[in-house]
Amino acid sequence: MIGLSRASSKLKTEHYFMNHIAIIGCGLIGRGWAIVFARSGYNVTLFDTHPQALDRALTHIGESMTRLNELGLLNGDPKELCNNIVYTESLETAVINADYVQENITEDVELKKHFYKKLDQITKPECILASSTSSIITSVFGFELKGRNRCIVVHPVNPPHLIPLVEISPAPFTDDSVIERTIDLQKSVKQKPILIKKEIPGFVLNRLQAAVLLESWQLVKEGYISVEDLDKTIKDGLGHRWAFMGPFETIDLNAKNGIAEYADTFGEKYRKMMKNERYSSWDDTLIKKITASRRDIISKTDLGTREKWRDTLLAELLVHKISSVKKYGE
Amino acid sequence: MIGLSRASSKLKTEHYFMNHIAIIGCGLIGRGWAIVFARSGYNVTLFDTHPQALDRALTHIGESMTRLNELGLLNGDPKELCNNIVYTESLETAVINADYVQENITEDVELKKHFYKKLDQITKPECILASSTSSIITSVFGFELKGRNRCIVVHPVNPPHLIPLVEISPAPFTDDSVIERTIDLQKSVKQKPILIKKEIPGFVLNRLQAAVLLESWQLVKEGYISVEDLDKTIKDGLGHRWAFMGPFETIDLNAKNGIAEYADTFGEKYRKMMKNERYSSWDDTLIKKITASRRDIISKTDLGTREKWRDTLLAELLVHKISSVKKYGE
Repeated sequence: MIGLSRASSKLKTEHYFMNHIAIIGCGLIGRGWAIVFARSGYNVTLFDTHPQALDRALTHIGESMTRLNELGLLNGDPKELCNNIVYTESLETAVINADYVQENITEDVELKKHFYKKLDQITKPECILASSTSSIITSVFGFELKGRNRCIVVHPVNPPHLIPLVEISPAPFTDDSVIERTIDLQKSVKQKPILIKKEIPGFVLNRLQAAVLLESWQLVKEGYISVEDLDKTIKDGLGHRWAFMGPFETIDLNAKNGIAEYADTFGEKYRKMMKNERYSSWDDTLIKKITASRRDIISKTDLGTREKWRDTLLAELLVHKISSVKKYGE
Repeated sequence: MIGLSRASSKLKTEHYFMNHIAIIGCGLIGRGWAIVFARSGYNVTLFDTHPQALDRALTHIGESMTRLNELGLLNGDPKELCNNIVYTESLETAVINADYVQENITEDVELKKHFYKKLDQITKPECILASSTSSIITSVFGFELKGRNRCIVVHPVNPPHLIPLVEISPAPFTDDSVIERTIDLQKSVKQKPILIKKEIPGFVLNRLQAAVLLESWQLVKEGYISVEDLDKTIKDGLGHRWAFMGPFETIDLNAKNGIAEYADTFGEKYRKMMKNERYSSWDDTLIKKITASRRDIISKTDLGTREKWRDTLLAELLVHKISSVKKYGE
């Protein structure tokens, strides 16, 4: 283990002092988490069963750190911050000293249950067991565990080092102190945690995304709009507001007397407008049609380049938003 | 009438040369439209029945132009561009030479029908009659007119000079050439027109907004999340992507093999997740609860200041996006 020194006093909270973070699985999400914790000075141990995946991950992380530094998004030298990350092919070594485990394994219920059973046995009893899952609630993967009170979902947006929102979804059996420490930890690494107060499929972010996607697919299916124009409706329209305001603040500022006036004027209209929506399946014909529209706009071979474009724009938007908050407040 | 000189040759299209724009009604939307056309060099005539409203509008427009200039969003001197705008209290004078009328009167079906009957009589037959309405379709306000073939909805996002999207929604009886000329005109003033191919209540933007709002209110009502945290889900999460990508591009880039793979993985999951949604009314209790949450975050007296904050952030986001597009493409 190398590079374990850091300014630890800064990270102390009144609830609990968390020092060692273990990241399980180093795909896209795991790598992002490693950056999130390492750039804030935490000791990160990265685990994966595939040694090649670990090598690749460290290369990716190094490149991302350099880029973040160029954008002014790092407090410190990128190489030094990378030294906060060590890696191992031994699960036991990765978690034995961990105060917090962030798990990113495959989305499979039985696999997760089995894995958490093991984690529960080999971690310190006070270590928080957090899952990046987007679809398996804490009540499901943690239910049978002796240490289920320390299990919690901590669902990031991809990639977590460029998009700050994190959904915190505890089970009814999760300790309050675990919820508090998890939220504090996320705040200490400059993420934006939100609390899902009762478990629900899709949590909140993917339910909002699903609401938009189901309506979008239906509108294209029924011939009201093209794929390209639908995308413009968000990126050149609603997305300009939603980049820095949520839907409640948006409507609160859109009526002279605030949100109640807006609700009186539009609430029933919207409900009537949408109440006959019965979203049909995204069948093969529709998937082919929408895929063809997308491939007209961008070819399959150009998707990789476009992903890099997206990550560049996400990073630059983050820089822009940080500068806006400094100038005008949040 | 003053200040009618401009570099008209730049604006010529192959379809039709539009020179004189009449803006009917000078509230928030009308003022925004006046800026949109005047900053691109068009001759704008502003009409309102209230002389005080006209005076106030010109003051507001002057201030907005100065601010746009400070942000580098104008091609030209703000005062000179303001000279492209004249105003009148006579409807006939406003529209007699108009090639394009942008109407922004009250959202009332009978009032609109009556008004368009008059417009149809006093405008040149080739003049396009465009409505900013968000709720009354062209088939309704234009149906009985002799010149209904030149009627069309051109629905902006508020404020139009800071958010470029415009929904173009023709009736089946609208001439194709009118649709084309309207789209060309919007492109010539750097707005982003999208075509609603068949009329539908709420067009597309407000249907997507309604989908998000109905789910948001329901989630708060049922106690899954607070108002503040729901807003964060968008502004610190989904909104980071949607500021420059639509929902289709987002999912196309979120699966290794593109949108079809994403649809296979998530399509049915999302449909099942959302299919039991029966959105209840936004009743008084709920409206009071959500209003109280918002008033905890920001007091009623501070709403005006917050609106200015919003417009500043919208303007700065526009500057940021224009610079991003220059550097990285759209």
